Amino acid sequence: MFFRKNKRIFLDYASTTPIDTEVSKVMRVLEKKSFANPSALYSEALFAKSKMKEARSNIAGILSCQVEEIVFTSGGTESNNLALLGVFEKHKTRDFVPHIVTTNIEHPAILEVCEEIKRQGGEVTIVPVGDDGIVSAQDIASALKSNTVLVSVMYANNEIGTIQPIREISRVIKHFREKNNSVLPYFHTDACQAVLYCPMHTASLGVDMMTLDGIKMHGPRGTGMLYVKRGVEIVPILFGGGQEKGLRSGTENVIGSVGFSKALEISEKMKEGEFARLLRIRDYAIERILQTFPTSSLNGSQSERLPNNINMCFKGLDAEFAVISLDVAGISASYSSSCRTLKEDSTSYVVSALGKNDCRGSSLRFTLGRGTKKSDIDSLVCALKSIIH
Amino acid sequence: MFFRKNKRIFLDYASTTPIDTEVSKVMRVLEKKSFANPSALYSEALFAKSKMKEARSNIAGILSCQVEEIVFTSGGTESNNLALLGVFEKHKTRDFVPHIVTTNIEHPAILEVCEEIKRQGGEVTIVPVGDDGIVSAQDIASALKSNTVLVSVMYANNEIGTIQPIREISRVIKHFREKNNSVLPYFHTDACQAVLYCPMHTASLGVDMMTLDGIKMHGPRGTGMLYVKRGVEIVPILFGGGQEKGLRSGTENVIGSVGFSKALEISEKMKEGEFARLLRIRDYAIERILQTFPTSSLNGSQSERLPNNINMCFKGLDAEFAVISLDVAGISASYSSSCRTLKEDSTSYVVSALGKNDCRGSSLRFTLGRGTKKSDIDSLVCALKSIIH
Repeated sequence: MFFRKNKRIFLDYASTTPIDTEVSKVMRVLEKKSFANPSALYSEALFAKSKMKEARSNIAGILSCQVEEIVFTSGGTESNNLALLGVFEKHKTRDFVPHIVTTNIEHPAILEVCEEIKRQGGEVTIVPVGDDGIVSAQDIASALKSNTVLVSVMYANNEIGTIQPIREISRVIKHFREKNNSVLPYFHTDACQAVLYCPMHTASLGVDMMTLDGIKMHGPRGTGMLYVKRGVEIVPILFGGGQEKGLRSGTENVIGSVGFSKALEISEKMKEGEFARLLRIRDYAIERILQTFPTSSLNGSQSERLPNNINMCFKGLDAEFAVISLDVAGISASYSSSCRTLKEDSTSYVVSALGKNDCRGSSLRFTLGRGTKKSDIDSLVCALKSIIH
Repeated sequence: MFFRKNKRIFLDYASTTPIDTEVSKVMRVLEKKSFANPSALYSEALFAKSKMKEARSNIAGILSCQVEEIVFTSGGTESNNLALLGVFEKHKTRDFVPHIVTTNIEHPAILEVCEEIKRQGGEVTIVPVGDDGIVSAQDIASALKSNTVLVSVMYANNEIGTIQPIREISRVIKHFREKNNSVLPYFHTDACQAVLYCPMHTASLGVDMMTLDGIKMHGPRGTGMLYVKRGVEIVPILFGGGQEKGLRSGTENVIGSVGFSKALEISEKMKEGEFARLLRIRDYAIERILQTFPTSSLNGSQSERLPNNINMCFKGLDAEFAVISLDVAGISASYSSSCRTLKEDSTSYVVSALGKNDCRGSSLRFTLGRGTKKSDIDSLVCALKSIIH
């Protein structure tokens, strides 16, 4: 059924994005021309190395950072693990317990790492967001302590799309550092969901580390990166040949890195246009759903929100049932992140965090993307009508 | 220059292998048909999930293991890290110092992990190989202690191609376990270099864990797996959504896993033929080099050796100079593993381990593969003549 893609409406772009055909083409060409290990010494290897360098340089231009600040990884989860565990491990000593500050709506690839850090004797403060799904920079500031080594706040949430005040949080952290005459805490942001729609200049964001994931930006699978600002003290979590300046061992994925770079480049070019286009569709969808289902409500702020995210509560709805019914109607949607689905938990801790406990099992997420048209929303509302009475 | 591939002779297949065109085709088809997150609930996701399942089932058939015993990773380095750190971390307690046994010619992705384990308070015994590059099972047995949790011995060496007595080592470990009425130590093997040429039935090998890497078997980049036998107690090293039964978080690389499975399948089909074909070419090469350069010698056993590995010492030669000169002559070779090149160390600890200290900076590695012809050896010997006087 789903092969006739014109018959299906895919509204789960936050979960994964199809590889851009141009990215795919670039990789295919390189697959034939460059397969060598860039660490070797002969021509094929030097060519592979030059391709890696080009990719790094292209990315550095887009993120306004240095080429040495880019660490290629296997994806967003590994990047987040490296950022948190790498900084924790670096600073942990017999006499010093590192403290990490984060929020209660982070992705499992942050929250589960925090659990591990606690198991390893670290200290973690989880700052709650407000009922709009936004964390207050002041609340982050209040959580900072003399042993805080890292603050990790996601740029935009994967379930409800709320955009966090990254620049403001950066400012309160810098203020704390100056007051304490310290280079700590570092500031990390998981930007996997934000990359397609938000500004990505690391310097103006004021972050020390930033996670990106190929699969969330129409790039190759199994690719990602961690931006690590020069001077950040961090140790690797994978050990071996010492690639990526010792921060990520393993034979370099040349083709994947080049594809990742191309995907980021395309995303930058399309950003402004897609932002405006999807914003209109998003707001149209929210308005239509609120009108059609009077007891429905939007989860999280509408103004500080990704232009592709619609997450609505339908009181009394069984979200899992709805997702399956929508699928039968030809629409792909989700009730929380896929990672949660995996745990066979159909409730959302993100929606719970908004103080909407009766919505945690009754909310649906529709995330738009490059293939989404306004008419898809009409089809969605129509399908929802047959499910929600 | 290296685009005219018929003019170049690639003799560094141990460093990396080109993607098989059939693997590439399978991935390209899937790229269009399946991009969804297999953890979601709608049709596209179920299709992706079914493709992952097919891949797992295909691999399980080849390795004669259960589908649940396959953990997909981002490559060999990650698999080795997971095996060693995962078992170490699982067994480490306040009162118990886990002990790991390995050899002195393992890949950096084992030896560097052992260094990290020592930093974390673990105990490591490194058993030296003999001057033939083979470790004695009896020496492994002698290294086992009551706190040994893991033995890790590579199936075949990446530099000198020597094949280790995996079945014999497995037997001495089982004997030790029985004597001590314990399920420990586990037995892990890094089979990245062996996979194309050696039997891969996990049960008959008697291993509890086995590492494979896509890039070394004409598969996709950034893919790998760890076979983890049911019952092996191990914890993850990457935390997040809990994919791969909790042992490897991160959105699944569906396309990569399917490509990996296809590459393994093709490798199995070609194994017997390629083994025989390359063995003839290898032995022809060794004979010709020994005849042409009377002071040259083979590093490591000739009989217990991968059919694609030629590693020769040329007394007095500057290996780095030779590799660059061969490149100019159109031949890609190496002087040790690429990971070592990265460290700007042109000597080989593997060759040193053979007791041939005067050969550590004077040895060249030529590794053959699917594109190698017998005539390539004639060209190689000819090129060597112009370099070695």
